[in-house]
Amino acid sequence: MSRVAVIGAGAVGCYYGARLAEAGHEVHFLMRRDYDAVRASGLRIESVDGDVHLEHPLVARSSAEIGPVDWVLCALKATAIEEMRGLVAPCVGPSTRILLIMNGLGLEERVAEWFGAARVFGGLAFTCINRGAPGTVQHLDYGPVTIAHLEDDPDEIAAGMALWADAKVKTLAAPSLLAARWAKLAWNIPFNGLTVTAGGVTTDRVLGQPGLRAAAHAVMREVIATGNADLAAHGSAERLDSDAIVTDLIGRTDVMTAYRPSTMIDFVDGLPMEVEAMFGEPLRRAQAIGVDTPYLALITAQMRSLDALATERRGG
Amino acid sequence: MSRVAVIGAGAVGCYYGARLAEAGHEVHFLMRRDYDAVRASGLRIESVDGDVHLEHPLVARSSAEIGPVDWVLCALKATAIEEMRGLVAPCVGPSTRILLIMNGLGLEERVAEWFGAARVFGGLAFTCINRGAPGTVQHLDYGPVTIAHLEDDPDEIAAGMALWADAKVKTLAAPSLLAARWAKLAWNIPFNGLTVTAGGVTTDRVLGQPGLRAAAHAVMREVIATGNADLAAHGSAERLDSDAIVTDLIGRTDVMTAYRPSTMIDFVDGLPMEVEAMFGEPLRRAQAIGVDTPYLALITAQMRSLDALATERRGG
Repeated sequence: MSRVAVIGAGAVGCYYGARLAEAGHEVHFLMRRDYDAVRASGLRIESVDGDVHLEHPLVARSSAEIGPVDWVLCALKATAIEEMRGLVAPCVGPSTRILLIMNGLGLEERVAEWFGAARVFGGLAFTCINRGAPGTVQHLDYGPVTIAHLEDDPDEIAAGMALWADAKVKTLAAPSLLAARWAKLAWNIPFNGLTVTAGGVTTDRVLGQPGLRAAAHAVMREVIATGNADLAAHGSAERLDSDAIVTDLIGRTDVMTAYRPSTMIDFVDGLPMEVEAMFGEPLRRAQAIGVDTPYLALITAQMRSLDALATERRGG
Repeated sequence: MSRVAVIGAGAVGCYYGARLAEAGHEVHFLMRRDYDAVRASGLRIESVDGDVHLEHPLVARSSAEIGPVDWVLCALKATAIEEMRGLVAPCVGPSTRILLIMNGLGLEERVAEWFGAARVFGGLAFTCINRGAPGTVQHLDYGPVTIAHLEDDPDEIAAGMALWADAKVKTLAAPSLLAARWAKLAWNIPFNGLTVTAGGVTTDRVLGQPGLRAAAHAVMREVIATGNADLAAHGSAERLDSDAIVTDLIGRTDVMTAYRPSTMIDFVDGLPMEVEAMFGEPLRRAQAIGVDTPYLALITAQMRSLDALATERRGG
């Protein structure tokens, strides 16, 4: 059994942390807003894969209270990346591994600058998990978590898979973190981007309006083309199959009606959006490599403006 | 002196109608919302070119009260195009001419289907006119009105210019209505489109953010390319000079700080936006001719979604 620290105990962190606790791991949750509620009545997961109720989870108000662990499961918003170093450091010992279940490109590389690349993993969750009342998380739709390692080390990937062996979470091993990140961006960029810039709508509205549907296809192809150029630039032999991915992702999204991507929820709630990790960094790579991405460029510019407006409104 | 009917007595209609009345024409205003206010205290124009106060303007509640005139000055929103026929018809006699001071592409062609092309003119106003209190209009910034004729008939263009000879309105004769419409769209599409889709911002915010500024250039070039292809498709020898127009329009907009385009005002106020005339019809022509316009396509899809959301909110 492993000692695990969950940093960023929002809906995603609580869900996966609870699944690890359920499997017998010693899971410590760093809690801020929900600390008192969870101390009082535990952590409750309502899930399509079966409910969990942790009556007395291990909760801490600071990372120092937790100390070094075997695994840090980091599920912060990408907008909190600069805070992350300080939050994670007290939990990192010589053999600690760090798994980021976060959205966006380049985050693992950032964490590697602080703690070394060998211990850094990426987890890509294709799933729908929302916060409920304090101490409650709703897991609405299933999907496997893809486990990858920043150095694509097969032994480390196996160690990452082993953590989840007894947990009620489907996992897939990805041989290339970079390819896995781009494959996930191929969904996130069109659907998080268009649900926001179309005014704060659900995915079915994007796919139901011909112009937005065509834009979803177009920007998805731009993302895949950029991903393949980025893989080549990194010396990787991995390539994403554009036609197969487009057909798969559009098809899967067609059948999951009225989904609210995380960025769209942030937009509607006036919260910070994960713009730079999800849009800005992919666009910077496209421009650095010289891939023409008009849809990505426009959506990124619009997202930055919308995010700046929300920041002004929160401040005012 | 001419008998003139102003149909669509919003800020633009009131302003230009008042300038014609000031010049001695017999100007009838079709009024709905402001009828009582204008009957009680007249029509007041506050203008950088000199104020006007019409104490007892000729106001009517229906076009039938006005009857046939020499000139119909139509300044409805393009979203009211389907109502326009019924509003204009009672004012049309055998020799009536119709001047549309409206935004968008294809409106004159529509009016020609109802009343014949020979009598249809386009007026393109590069100006900033806002509604004030009922019966009051503020003219904040000057700019000439370009006068064009649907059949590009030089004698008719001269007749259109003659109407304004004694009015305090600068006019320019345009030899090609289609070229003039595209030249105006080259401003309206980037700035009305991007100020809305960037969240409801002023033009200085579009030009001050590098990504949006680049998008303004890109979509402007798409519009001009489509315009030139459309001119060729219509057998016109006119062409728009892309570099010159981009330099001119971006330069002019750089010095007019914090401008709120009409569509952006509609967006912020939750009112119908002129999406089809200003974006939809240009995009349809680009697609029919085969010009690749990713920026225009995405902005149009977003504008349609935002407009549909506003319609739902007004109804709900």
